[in-house]
Amino acid sequence: MATETSAPETSVPEAAAPGTYVQPTIDVPALTALLDGRYADVRQLVRTNLVDYASILEEAETLSQAEFRERVKEVVVEMAATGQTGMGFPEQYGGGGDIGASLAAFETLAFGDLSVLVKVGVQFGLFGGAILQLGTQRHHDAYLADLVTGSVMGCFAMTETGHGSNVQALGTVATYDAASQEFVITTTRDDASKDYIGNAAQHAELAVVFAQLEVAGESHGVHAFVVPIRVDGEPAPGVRIADDGLKMGLNGVDNGKLWFDGVRVPRTALLNRFADVTPEGVYESAIDNPNRRFFTMLGTLVQGRVCVGGAGINAAKVALTIAVRYALRRRQFEATSDDEEELLLDYGQHQRRLFPLLARTYALHFAQEVVAAQCHDVFSGAVSDEKVRRELESRAAGTKALGTWHATRAIQESREACGGAGYLAVNRFAALKADTDVFTTFEGDNTVLLQLVAKGLLTDYSSEFEDLDQFGMVRFVASLAVDTVIERTSVHKLLERVRDLMPGGDDWDQEAGLLDPAYQLAMLRYREEHMLAGVARRLKRGIDQDMNPGTVFSQVQDHVIAAARAHVERLVLEAFVEKTAALPDGDLKVALNLLCDLHALCTIEADRAWFMEHGRLTVQRSKSISREINELCRKIRPLAREYVDGFGVPEAMLRSPELI
Amino acid sequence: MATETSAPETSVPEAAAPGTYVQPTIDVPALTALLDGRYADVRQLVRTNLVDYASILEEAETLSQAEFRERVKEVVVEMAATGQTGMGFPEQYGGGGDIGASLAAFETLAFGDLSVLVKVGVQFGLFGGAILQLGTQRHHDAYLADLVTGSVMGCFAMTETGHGSNVQALGTVATYDAASQEFVITTTRDDASKDYIGNAAQHAELAVVFAQLEVAGESHGVHAFVVPIRVDGEPAPGVRIADDGLKMGLNGVDNGKLWFDGVRVPRTALLNRFADVTPEGVYESAIDNPNRRFFTMLGTLVQGRVCVGGAGINAAKVALTIAVRYALRRRQFEATSDDEEELLLDYGQHQRRLFPLLARTYALHFAQEVVAAQCHDVFSGAVSDEKVRRELESRAAGTKALGTWHATRAIQESREACGGAGYLAVNRFAALKADTDVFTTFEGDNTVLLQLVAKGLLTDYSSEFEDLDQFGMVRFVASLAVDTVIERTSVHKLLERVRDLMPGGDDWDQEAGLLDPAYQLAMLRYREEHMLAGVARRLKRGIDQDMNPGTVFSQVQDHVIAAARAHVERLVLEAFVEKTAALPDGDLKVALNLLCDLHALCTIEADRAWFMEHGRLTVQRSKSISREINELCRKIRPLAREYVDGFGVPEAMLRSPELI
Repeated sequence: MATETSAPETSVPEAAAPGTYVQPTIDVPALTALLDGRYADVRQLVRTNLVDYASILEEAETLSQAEFRERVKEVVVEMAATGQTGMGFPEQYGGGGDIGASLAAFETLAFGDLSVLVKVGVQFGLFGGAILQLGTQRHHDAYLADLVTGSVMGCFAMTETGHGSNVQALGTVATYDAASQEFVITTTRDDASKDYIGNAAQHAELAVVFAQLEVAGESHGVHAFVVPIRVDGEPAPGVRIADDGLKMGLNGVDNGKLWFDGVRVPRTALLNRFADVTPEGVYESAIDNPNRRFFTMLGTLVQGRVCVGGAGINAAKVALTIAVRYALRRRQFEATSDDEEELLLDYGQHQRRLFPLLARTYALHFAQEVVAAQCHDVFSGAVSDEKVRRELESRAAGTKALGTWHATRAIQESREACGGAGYLAVNRFAALKADTDVFTTFEGDNTVLLQLVAKGLLTDYSSEFEDLDQFGMVRFVASLAVDTVIERTSVHKLLERVRDLMPGGDDWDQEAGLLDPAYQLAMLRYREEHMLAGVARRLKRGIDQDMNPGTVFSQVQDHVIAAARAHVERLVLEAFVEKTAALPDGDLKVALNLLCDLHALCTIEADRAWFMEHGRLTVQRSKSISREINELCRKIRPLAREYVDGFGVPEAMLRSPELI
Repeated sequence: MATETSAPETSVPEAAAPGTYVQPTIDVPALTALLDGRYADVRQLVRTNLVDYASILEEAETLSQAEFRERVKEVVVEMAATGQTGMGFPEQYGGGGDIGASLAAFETLAFGDLSVLVKVGVQFGLFGGAILQLGTQRHHDAYLADLVTGSVMGCFAMTETGHGSNVQALGTVATYDAASQEFVITTTRDDASKDYIGNAAQHAELAVVFAQLEVAGESHGVHAFVVPIRVDGEPAPGVRIADDGLKMGLNGVDNGKLWFDGVRVPRTALLNRFADVTPEGVYESAIDNPNRRFFTMLGTLVQGRVCVGGAGINAAKVALTIAVRYALRRRQFEATSDDEEELLLDYGQHQRRLFPLLARTYALHFAQEVVAAQCHDVFSGAVSDEKVRRELESRAAGTKALGTWHATRAIQESREACGGAGYLAVNRFAALKADTDVFTTFEGDNTVLLQLVAKGLLTDYSSEFEDLDQFGMVRFVASLAVDTVIERTSVHKLLERVRDLMPGGDDWDQEAGLLDPAYQLAMLRYREEHMLAGVARRLKRGIDQDMNPGTVFSQVQDHVIAAARAHVERLVLEAFVEKTAALPDGDLKVALNLLCDLHALCTIEADRAWFMEHGRLTVQRSKSISREINELCRKIRPLAREYVDGFGVPEAMLRSPELI
């Protein structure tokens, strides 16, 4: 992709003074061990499984859609038998009892065929996760052991044709019939059919169905129910199922539509961790506010977003490994020698295309490590603070958005960097592109997710935060005095940190070394703080001018999203900086610092207009950043192979016989 | 895609003063007529054919690869019978005798299935074009009539496994055997197999094979030969053929590999317009310099690039039509009303995602119109000046690069803007994405094409221009004094134009109205001029410092490419400005000016850092530009449907039953 119109003018740099930089040697296994982290053994198990089932990459092309779906199911069930897919479930039901392990396993699975990944996600993450998190012991006893082995397959029926992002407005209704002590589930409108539901078209016997609960004529918002949708392979009575047919990718997953025509399920089918209906028809919940109740339920499903973000980042690793290795083999045009054509990776432009993406992949990897660890702590009960939970949801949303957009971009650039050969299906880009494309929109549309991030920041993750719709958020912010806005937002704390970091006052950032991580972080913190405060002021001004809150929001929306992105970018860089800072001195640290610097400076460079507009960057310094980036690229060049080998993508998963 | 990290802070604008802007009414047929231009009837014929064969869009999914290839061939041959595909061939061979008509027909065909498009391109553009442009009457008489009807199918065997961009280094050799008066064609190396050749795997009987010509032990560079590769459906003796198999997209085209094991063809098989070998084995050519001879041959094939650029732009139209119409139907979240959810297109961010792409599509459309008209003039003999021909080649290269990158980006953004529904194959994005992906690399890798553009600018399209490799270009530039560099480059003329345009001196551009096209163009011209001069200076400095020319080039390469891009961006905006300026006053002019302004300001905004760095934009003015863009988006919003309807994409080609 090429959206930058120009590179700034930089001069041919002088040779570095001798002695200032000694090229490190990268110990690839040590690098892989660092990336694999705490769950190295889990990741190794998955790698072994991926290699054992490597034929699936070919089968994705050679089998018919129907056959491929069956094959993917088979592989998923066989992988389940190795324990790989059930790590997040309690041990008494055959699981591994370790959320972090489960996330690591899922991420690593993204090196392979992504239909397998998504089928695993549907069965164990979405369906299994809903039973585990929204259900109570009766549901656990009834379903977990069987779903962990894959002997019972299920689906997660939330999205409807008409509502994907705004799931509070779902049109499926579950009415309690006290006489029979049953819920009656009905698709009430044309656009209320459940849609795009993985596992629904073919394999699921059960569905967790999200529907508006009505008890005694009163609506209590969206709740989840376990509904049998298929009996002996045929749709259950009252259930209609349609196949969503071919998709751009992920054709090993059987997505489908579901309609419910007054389907009756027992009272106990309600997943009743957060709310219940008594046999007599009295609705009970410990959470009074219906919005909050709903978002509490949704919040328990955050693992899905953590998983998709991690999967995107790992898919990008596959693409970049291929592109870098190809560029170390492919020669085209004589350039520095009359006798031999030049390696692609020795072209400055090629380095500029690939290395910032490589550095960003590392940055996102470490950011993902942080969010996965937090997710583990929250769901393992090590942390029970509500606010921490909300911060996790926000961080998961942001990392998912940036991780999946990065995947789309890195895979596209890698494909183009491999030319026409990259277009053949025998190489992996076709599948990678097609399969990952939907990552930016499923498990939360990225744009909507960034709005969620912004909302959290603007309300400082207050308890009201999740209840607020767009109206509510605008009104909430507007209801405060401007100073209070700053006080009430996360901006406040940021400002203090930025002041700490800019010891010499406002000019410090114009003097500090470009490669000083304190400088790099201070820049990103300043941007975040400034944008958030700006959004708050604009929202407030709009309301003060008596504008419709929705109109205000629409006009400020690009700013809202930019602020959220700035926030997540800061978190990502922080994760990378902290990781490298904690390393013992040595070659590995030097090598990772190169990537960390490249990532930081590219992030600043990409938005250097903003920094100049806001007095944080002089023209001269802006040009120095671009020069330094080119210099970093030249230092990274001799280490490129080791950086991608460090990802530890199994050779069989690269599947690019003509490229590497 | 999301590469911009932030939007600048803009304040909520005041309502426009009444009377300053009256919303125009768009007469859609008139807009379509304007876009269709001179060849409206040709475009109408193609639209009719597309609708007649609309079932191909489904067949791309439902048929097996083998069946689909046959079906695509069938459709191509049937379309040929309508005259649609042969418009560029002389009338005496059954063609239409009108290059411009041929280009218009091809572009319009890109509304439909792109395997059909590419098969047409291979047969009539590449294969037919090579026979027509590189051959002489004996080849025309032998082949043209049959290839125009499709009763003889051929392929264009230039690219090899090892060489796609650097085709002067091809490894296939054609040795003249004076005894038998035959050429012996041989694949000399492993990586010299012809590869990715459309029509080769299945349908082609003939190939135009590019090979190093050797006569009496002397090599004369790459020449083209007509070689039968298939007889009665079986590979001809000495020819081995392999299938390239499944590809990411375009699976209705049978790409394959070819190896030649001493295949003998008669002396007359040499396409001898520019060079010949006498029966006795004497090599003769009117062009002495072998590089120049080769590039003269290649230059005659420029129509292929013009075609691909136009096709990319039209494919983007299809995607944007769907995305805009979906956003005018899809509602999500209550925003301005408590009772009804908001249309996606009423969200500011959604406008920011789609409208700049819409405006750019219009801009590229008109830029393509210019390059197609120039192509028509050059190839119809209306212009015979060599320099004009070289400028056309450069312009075609640049427009192809920007047009196809735009297609990739617009299709991706449009898909994401349609959420998960956009992922179903029944909607068009799957095919659009997969099929167009290779456009950025085939018919010239976009990055390599931009280098070609830069080379032309730096050498002012001098006669040496095309001979120069990277070494040569660097040395050429370096051999001149700096002033001479400026003098000898196109920069010189640009500088004069910029001065004309900035009547008040350097400050004029800080005072002029943002919506003044003279201002907008002056900005882009200034950038182009400055970048080119900078590249020239850096190349020269590197050589003066005794650096290896290749190393100098590698380090300056991003700057070289940025300069080329800046040049093409200026041409694109110029085409749009000139088109709208020529319109009679009225609503259509007002409506197109909105898009033209949006395109111009978005182009400046995307590179506002550069303009600030180079003193052409103050911080304040940079922020005004972003504000003005948001304001333009709001003016465009009520006209969005008409803008996309104006493209005239047949309803059947939109094929998005759930979306529009």
